Amino acid sequence: MHSSEVRDYMQGIGRAAQAAARILARASSAQRNTALLAVAEQLQSERQRLKEANECDQEVGRAGGLEPALLDRLGLSDARIDDMAEGLRQIAALPDPIGAVRDLHSRPSGIQVGRMRVPLGVVGIIYEARPNVTADAAGLCLKSANAVILRGGSEAIHSNQAIADCIRRGLAVSELPREAVQVVEITDRAAVGELITMDEYLDVLVPRGGKGLVERLLREATVPMIKHLDGVCHVYVDDQADPEKAARIAYNAKTQRYGTCNTMESLLIAEAIAPQLLPRLIDLYQQAGVELRGCERTRALAPAIPAATEADWRAEYLAPILAIRIVADLDEAIEHIERYGSHHTDSIVTENYTRAWRFLREVDSSSVMVNASTRFADGFEYGLGAEIGISTAKLHARGPVGLEGLTTEKYVVLGDGHIRE
Amino acid sequence: MHSSEVRDYMQGIGRAAQAAARILARASSAQRNTALLAVAEQLQSERQRLKEANECDQEVGRAGGLEPALLDRLGLSDARIDDMAEGLRQIAALPDPIGAVRDLHSRPSGIQVGRMRVPLGVVGIIYEARPNVTADAAGLCLKSANAVILRGGSEAIHSNQAIADCIRRGLAVSELPREAVQVVEITDRAAVGELITMDEYLDVLVPRGGKGLVERLLREATVPMIKHLDGVCHVYVDDQADPEKAARIAYNAKTQRYGTCNTMESLLIAEAIAPQLLPRLIDLYQQAGVELRGCERTRALAPAIPAATEADWRAEYLAPILAIRIVADLDEAIEHIERYGSHHTDSIVTENYTRAWRFLREVDSSSVMVNASTRFADGFEYGLGAEIGISTAKLHARGPVGLEGLTTEKYVVLGDGHIRE
Repeated sequence: MHSSEVRDYMQGIGRAAQAAARILARASSAQRNTALLAVAEQLQSERQRLKEANECDQEVGRAGGLEPALLDRLGLSDARIDDMAEGLRQIAALPDPIGAVRDLHSRPSGIQVGRMRVPLGVVGIIYEARPNVTADAAGLCLKSANAVILRGGSEAIHSNQAIADCIRRGLAVSELPREAVQVVEITDRAAVGELITMDEYLDVLVPRGGKGLVERLLREATVPMIKHLDGVCHVYVDDQADPEKAARIAYNAKTQRYGTCNTMESLLIAEAIAPQLLPRLIDLYQQAGVELRGCERTRALAPAIPAATEADWRAEYLAPILAIRIVADLDEAIEHIERYGSHHTDSIVTENYTRAWRFLREVDSSSVMVNASTRFADGFEYGLGAEIGISTAKLHARGPVGLEGLTTEKYVVLGDGHIRE
Repeated sequence: MHSSEVRDYMQGIGRAAQAAARILARASSAQRNTALLAVAEQLQSERQRLKEANECDQEVGRAGGLEPALLDRLGLSDARIDDMAEGLRQIAALPDPIGAVRDLHSRPSGIQVGRMRVPLGVVGIIYEARPNVTADAAGLCLKSANAVILRGGSEAIHSNQAIADCIRRGLAVSELPREAVQVVEITDRAAVGELITMDEYLDVLVPRGGKGLVERLLREATVPMIKHLDGVCHVYVDDQADPEKAARIAYNAKTQRYGTCNTMESLLIAEAIAPQLLPRLIDLYQQAGVELRGCERTRALAPAIPAATEADWRAEYLAPILAIRIVADLDEAIEHIERYGSHHTDSIVTENYTRAWRFLREVDSSSVMVNASTRFADGFEYGLGAEIGISTAKLHARGPVGLEGLTTEKYVVLGDGHIRE
């Protein structure tokens, strides 16, 4: 496809999304929820077509030598189709974020001022193999009254188109415009380049993919982005920690799942408690098959552990590997987190009130915790009802992002003929 | 100055600001307020030095042919010095935005989750002639526990340095780092280029200047920005408006001040009420010396008014000029605002409940009003206590931006040994 054709195609999608966004912003809660439920029903009643389309993607993938892990993520089984439908029903059941007015209060001038929650407008989502993201992301945007442009990976194009068909039929049931959810149907890489620079049409981008994608967007995108970079998360075990809680949390934060961004990657432990606690922790980790790397002081206690390098303190392993450092005290722990962490999620284990509060206040991360596993940093665990991603940026949305992150607030002013004197 | 020297200088400022930001984030409310009051006192006790430095800027300005309006804005009289000091005392008296925890609630897992308000970190402010912005912006950043880098116009460099001296002495009184507030002391234009791309040190940019500055930043900045573009504000007078309120609001919104971004630039009026109301309004505007431009239907009522062109509907006059359009109804008014407006501030005058609510919900602007003058769109009028700017963006801060716009929230999680199952 010629680059000007890609451009025209994407611009057309952008314009249509913007027009649909205006209609969506006026649609009632009931209308949006009806559409969500209708899409869920379509997905289940059209499961045969979905599986056929998916089989087509899988064949192409196998022929093209797609890795087994990616092939697995690409798959649409009956169970996954039911999960998608169930996810949409759950989104429909959430409270409507749109239209809420807060803090309406009277001013000395006589006007009343408040803030109303409204959709952002048009959301662009860029993602990779999993076709279930198509339904999930469309559902979150529809619930929050945003139009959405979905750009999935080319390896899932047939599955995504089949899901998009179901979405369109669901929108029609509720008399919402079909352009409320659009799937980019060209796999040309230039389409992404267009999408991320269409700031006249798009209000926000949500990349749901690897670090490479986010880094490309950081360089090239002109549309603002809900971005997620590294999750280099820490647990600091204070010398006034309860050893049982410390062991439980430090073990869970590393081993409950290895590939998630809220998994602990470095363990910091106060030197006064290390001789008592660390040998036991090392034992637990080794039984779980976790490869350990330690600072000099750690290796003094456990000489078999290889030395951690500077790169280890910055590593997001996403694997059964853990770096361990013995620190003098809370100050040194905070200093380490500030220097090497990624401002994602960090936790202290302590019974000391003042240190707990200092950690909460002073550690500059999107989630800070006391006596809890970093694995809790998640939209569902926080009660957001849904998660569109986790933001490591400070502006707009920080930490797990739910429906609220897809909205903004405007000021409303109620007067009765008031003028400014 | 060589470009690598500019770079080194700015990088040094950035590093120092980041280090200061960490100390500020830990400083108590009392410590920050003490500094604010000490700076206010310094400004007043050093007024002679401030006026001498300012006289120096004024001489350079006069010699260089600076416009009289700019020379006036540059001036530091006793009254303006007292205003700066008073402004800082008012900021000190505001509630501390930092450290507040909201919505702390228990989750089924047993953890408690809430959100804590924290500083952004390092704020960069770029502004033009008015030296009082130096004290004002430094005060807002100090109150919100952010370090700030101030880059004022070269025409005010001596005044800004003298104010910066007062700020540094105030910081010292409260034992806060002097790098909490830094004024860029080189006037090289390349310094701005460095500042706006130092995303490793800066968390947000606040441009306080004309459209040219914001447009440059939109093109070149990699640091996120609280941006303000045009204020093309509308009043729509519905056919169910109270004519007295309509006349009062439409007159005030245009004539109370001409040069502000919340001044009405286009008046929309329903055709059913226009014959009754418009001649009276035209009369009022003409008495006030406002130049009018009208649509065809307006000119049918008042043939002496010249025709408005397409450019008039998009114009931010910032002057005693007004475009007037007669529209069929609310739908046409909303359509006009959507097409030509700048999403800043728009107001409807009506006694009709349903139309008032439709306008509030459907107009996608940072402030939407019923029966009130657009001139109320202002941080002080909204009760924010202070204003760092008005944002026309949708993400992070929208509309008048007070201290809250200089902060963010992080999640806090309180557990008691909780792990994820």
